[in-house]
Amino acid sequence: MPDFTDRLKPAHDGTATLQAEHDGSAINVAELARHLLGRDGFLERQQKVLNVLSKEALFKKDQQLNLSRPERYQLGLARSKAIQRIIRRESWNHEDYSMAEYLNDEMSPYFLHMSMFVTTVREQASKEQQAYWMPKILNYDIIGCYAQTELGHGSNVRGLETTATWDPLKKEFEIHSPHLTASKWWNGSMGRTATHAIVVAQLLLPKANNPTELTNHGPQTFILQIRDKETHRSLPGIAVGDIGPKYGYASMDNGYMVFDHFRIPESAMLSRYAEVSDKTGAFVRTGHPAVVYGSLTFVRGQIIMHARLVLARAVTVAVRYTSIRRQFKDRDASNSAAAVEMKVLDYPTVQIRILPLLATTFALHYTGEYMYELYRKSRQTIETGDFGPLAQLHSASSGLKSLCTMLAADGIETCRRAMGGHGFGGGSGLVGLNSDYLSKPTVEGDNWMITQQVAAYLIKKMTDAVNDPNAPPKDPTDELFQFYLKNRSHRIPQTVVQDGTINDPSIVEIFQWRAADLSHRAYQARVVERKGWTKMMITLHNLSRAYSEFILVTNFYNSFSTSSSPLSTPTPAVLRTCFRLYALYTLDQNAAAFTMTNSIAPESVYTLQDTILDLMTELRPHAVKLVDAWSIPDWLLHSALGRSDGKVYEELFDMAHRRNPLNKVTFNPDWRSEEIVLGSGDGGRQVLAKL
Amino acid sequence: MPDFTDRLKPAHDGTATLQAEHDGSAINVAELARHLLGRDGFLERQQKVLNVLSKEALFKKDQQLNLSRPERYQLGLARSKAIQRIIRRESWNHEDYSMAEYLNDEMSPYFLHMSMFVTTVREQASKEQQAYWMPKILNYDIIGCYAQTELGHGSNVRGLETTATWDPLKKEFEIHSPHLTASKWWNGSMGRTATHAIVVAQLLLPKANNPTELTNHGPQTFILQIRDKETHRSLPGIAVGDIGPKYGYASMDNGYMVFDHFRIPESAMLSRYAEVSDKTGAFVRTGHPAVVYGSLTFVRGQIIMHARLVLARAVTVAVRYTSIRRQFKDRDASNSAAAVEMKVLDYPTVQIRILPLLATTFALHYTGEYMYELYRKSRQTIETGDFGPLAQLHSASSGLKSLCTMLAADGIETCRRAMGGHGFGGGSGLVGLNSDYLSKPTVEGDNWMITQQVAAYLIKKMTDAVNDPNAPPKDPTDELFQFYLKNRSHRIPQTVVQDGTINDPSIVEIFQWRAADLSHRAYQARVVERKGWTKMMITLHNLSRAYSEFILVTNFYNSFSTSSSPLSTPTPAVLRTCFRLYALYTLDQNAAAFTMTNSIAPESVYTLQDTILDLMTELRPHAVKLVDAWSIPDWLLHSALGRSDGKVYEELFDMAHRRNPLNKVTFNPDWRSEEIVLGSGDGGRQVLAKL
Repeated sequence: MPDFTDRLKPAHDGTATLQAEHDGSAINVAELARHLLGRDGFLERQQKVLNVLSKEALFKKDQQLNLSRPERYQLGLARSKAIQRIIRRESWNHEDYSMAEYLNDEMSPYFLHMSMFVTTVREQASKEQQAYWMPKILNYDIIGCYAQTELGHGSNVRGLETTATWDPLKKEFEIHSPHLTASKWWNGSMGRTATHAIVVAQLLLPKANNPTELTNHGPQTFILQIRDKETHRSLPGIAVGDIGPKYGYASMDNGYMVFDHFRIPESAMLSRYAEVSDKTGAFVRTGHPAVVYGSLTFVRGQIIMHARLVLARAVTVAVRYTSIRRQFKDRDASNSAAAVEMKVLDYPTVQIRILPLLATTFALHYTGEYMYELYRKSRQTIETGDFGPLAQLHSASSGLKSLCTMLAADGIETCRRAMGGHGFGGGSGLVGLNSDYLSKPTVEGDNWMITQQVAAYLIKKMTDAVNDPNAPPKDPTDELFQFYLKNRSHRIPQTVVQDGTINDPSIVEIFQWRAADLSHRAYQARVVERKGWTKMMITLHNLSRAYSEFILVTNFYNSFSTSSSPLSTPTPAVLRTCFRLYALYTLDQNAAAFTMTNSIAPESVYTLQDTILDLMTELRPHAVKLVDAWSIPDWLLHSALGRSDGKVYEELFDMAHRRNPLNKVTFNPDWRSEEIVLGSGDGGRQVLAKL
Repeated sequence: MPDFTDRLKPAHDGTATLQAEHDGSAINVAELARHLLGRDGFLERQQKVLNVLSKEALFKKDQQLNLSRPERYQLGLARSKAIQRIIRRESWNHEDYSMAEYLNDEMSPYFLHMSMFVTTVREQASKEQQAYWMPKILNYDIIGCYAQTELGHGSNVRGLETTATWDPLKKEFEIHSPHLTASKWWNGSMGRTATHAIVVAQLLLPKANNPTELTNHGPQTFILQIRDKETHRSLPGIAVGDIGPKYGYASMDNGYMVFDHFRIPESAMLSRYAEVSDKTGAFVRTGHPAVVYGSLTFVRGQIIMHARLVLARAVTVAVRYTSIRRQFKDRDASNSAAAVEMKVLDYPTVQIRILPLLATTFALHYTGEYMYELYRKSRQTIETGDFGPLAQLHSASSGLKSLCTMLAADGIETCRRAMGGHGFGGGSGLVGLNSDYLSKPTVEGDNWMITQQVAAYLIKKMTDAVNDPNAPPKDPTDELFQFYLKNRSHRIPQTVVQDGTINDPSIVEIFQWRAADLSHRAYQARVVERKGWTKMMITLHNLSRAYSEFILVTNFYNSFSTSSSPLSTPTPAVLRTCFRLYALYTLDQNAAAFTMTNSIAPESVYTLQDTILDLMTELRPHAVKLVDAWSIPDWLLHSALGRSDGKVYEELFDMAHRRNPLNKVTFNPDWRSEEIVLGSGDGGRQVLAKL
């Protein structure tokens, strides 16, 4: 309905403001976008899938924040099913499908089916089992989930309580939940969607000499049907359902499942690497169990590679909005009355929150690419039967998963707060991103817990280096530790001269030295002084972080130091500014660890804040173009504040005035009446019925 | 419906676990609770109001997370109205009402009526205006809101665009929104509830010598009706509505409002301190405008005092849950097979996230009490017409608002993550707390912006101290700055000996010295070197934080150093451990600023981590009893993880298996069908209709 507000425009034109930002930087956005996202046709695929999805009414994101959690699950299921139909209609491949999931941007109730469920069958099922299950899976004739985590047991898989007891007479397993804490819990797609599940349970076999006694052979995987094909109700002996609303993941039916002596056939145990001999009832291992860490490492690698695009989304919104938003005049302006309000991105207090994160997106990028390469190479080696690279891969992926998800999760919230009031509004586009992404510091290995794995690896490496300082180094870590041991007695900390000058190799060396020195301290404490592991945990966490930051800094540095840049001026220089900003900001945030380890002299740290200010001033004119290069489509951003056309205020107003369903209802604000909707006369019964 | 899951119990009994925690500490919880919350009958009032509210069906919190945002507003309005009826039924006073709001724990659509609306009328309306409006307000015959912030204008009140132009012929004001960015925005209670509004607008008066030219007399306040009494529709010339879903505040109708040459009578301008002469059309100021900062300071003071209870809630949940949750056996256990899994609160990596925050709740407490006293005393002085204390009060409240809301907001999220997977679930009780509280770093003065006010105050104080180092000190800050100036030339940094020994006065002195030295650096840069204000902003922010941390540390220290404790053993010693943990943890987190200012020697900082570990070991046995002392009722916590009876897993399972509405519906998971609810045959139309 037209009204007088239709005529109104914002005081400053956002489109013109963003255009002026573009005009102020000579960066070639298309070229940089291709540099960042050119691999595997990402940009073309994004456009192709976007063209299809954005035209489907079911995928409109507009009212998502107005839906209840049960409605969000229904929507999520409807979309997942629609994507399957679209895939077939459009002849999309698996990468197109992944792109659709990325752009749809919610956890699909089918997600576990095409990730852990199919991966586990592919990796752990025997040839016969695969022949039986894979066609059903790939055709989505069944929908699977992966039931490992329990109500009382997360990270420690050995502590799982669910049992699978072998019945040698009937040749069956009995799956059972002995306690409430044995209930499977959190398992995605299980709550309302899945028809089948992979269940991880302690395998209990009767002893050969005394069949009434059981031996625990540790967690094994079983595949079983959990719901009836016709009624979709749980089978007798199983209680299964959705665990209820969560911080995020509204569209996903994370579930619980309890077993009451539930019987499954012998063929249910996935038997590529382990099986129960149906003749002797003995446990037979037929492969290297370490291979199962392969898929965990792969999942962590994907999380690391995804982190850059997540952080880029938040930074895109923040950079665009704070370029348009104006607040306060310069306190020192010579003609205060004539001055216009400043763009908030021109305030150092806004820059210091957003620009280091902008730099971080590129730091995450180059390490994401490094992980991709590392995984690809390691996989080749592992395929030849050599499991050597697995330790390094597992360690790097653990430390980086912890660091990168922390940077991205905290970065979203930092961007949100830097946008002030509107950052708290639904127009930020960060409400769902924040709620969903905050799962990432916890899933696939808690960010604090998994850092122990990195530290254990580094202590072992340092022990090797101490024991044989001249052994041929197997990898860069060996090289670093040997270098450290040769030089630690006469180390002179790096210094920064007064004007902030420090060259790039010195920056890398500072991060290397801290990682090596903290590794040596951990080695000293654990191996030499035999300090308790638990007592050392905080130190070990800090070590993992230092080591992972060293990886980020090194990969970023290598991106421009080892070959001449394919990018045109001024992009290479701007990326180098990003490198320095990321590294020096990180250094400044953790200064004590650097000075304690003699990596840098304390007086040098104190000058960093001015250097950081200068780097931000250098970066500022390029900020808008740099986020453009990340090529996040407006449809995915779904952010009034972050729109690429700068129409921030028009969109916020339109969302409120024309598209908010609450404004279609008139209420009765008088406390004397129990009526809520004016004129409904229902005495508030509708509200009560929902409670 | 009974089923086999009814028989199941968790592997470890949570109730017994918490009982064992209680048995392990000699703290007298009731005594400590009274020490913390005894003032003004808080504990008795909490119990009284709880007894009433918790019995009302409308206040059941159980299904809140399953409601859509429009439903949450309806529920919020229903509850607000019900509270008004209950108040009258139970003869509650204003403190009882505030307690009901606290326990109900959601932003009420009436909230602005009883806060900014009534406060502004009370403080800025003339006697005649008060006589007309106050009875209607107190009786809730009208519902008011406070319309200051605009779509394009937040912190900078002088930049507001809405105009109030005086028409000398008709003796009316014309309220108008010249641009879209002039739309009032964010204003609570305005979207669907309010009948009236205080509107802040630029007062434009025709010039006496040239009536076609207008002079801007800056922002003034007007009271006006915005909706029709019968239809509750907006009046002609006003477009008003709810701005839509936000990060939190689901129950609150934050609104927008646009004016199209809307006319209001002369009497609408609140005229206690300023009015338009209806004879000459001239602007007449009749009072000290600084008094308006009084209510802002009061609101900030309340936020500071509230922060302890917010953080205490998150810490209560985290401490109880991590005392019950077990994960992994001790890696160094001598008999690994026999060992039970450790309580996760016994891991230093969990302690370092939760226990410093537990200590922080007490740090916030003593400074909250200090603010309460400071406000009370200043108010008395101001009532006598002496506005001297306002600067100090305003500065302290700004710096502390920034620091305390940051500590609480970040603390909630730290606690949530420390609880791993279940921290992401709806059973944490922190989902709503987090979403709602994240507004606090932004509202009532953005946390980064307002720190400039603190810094400006400190620079002025330091300038005074430098100019006249022997003037009689007016307050402790003067004393500190004079002490600093006398001693800075021969300062010897504090040191910590190897075993971590450092006495409490030395800790306070370290925080004092840093604050003084950073103040002097800011003075040097701004006053002596005439550095640009904008360039200095990050430094100024850090200064404000350092000064506010010094206030927290000092007040905490004074709580036990200046008089003998009224608390029985071992509580005073445990609180002293909290003091040391809070202070040394804070020191360790910002070590570089302390060493740079010569407050403490760098080598001493490096030993702090071991000291902190020891302090946490001291504190650990008392953690559960310390959170109990905060006396957060289970009904308010609404947390499966934080239940005082320790039945964590029973409650989580009950929520999922017996009370989750999603589990009452069976879905059709087959992608070939567009049907979502199995057997409904609606082809997915219901879902589409919501989009």
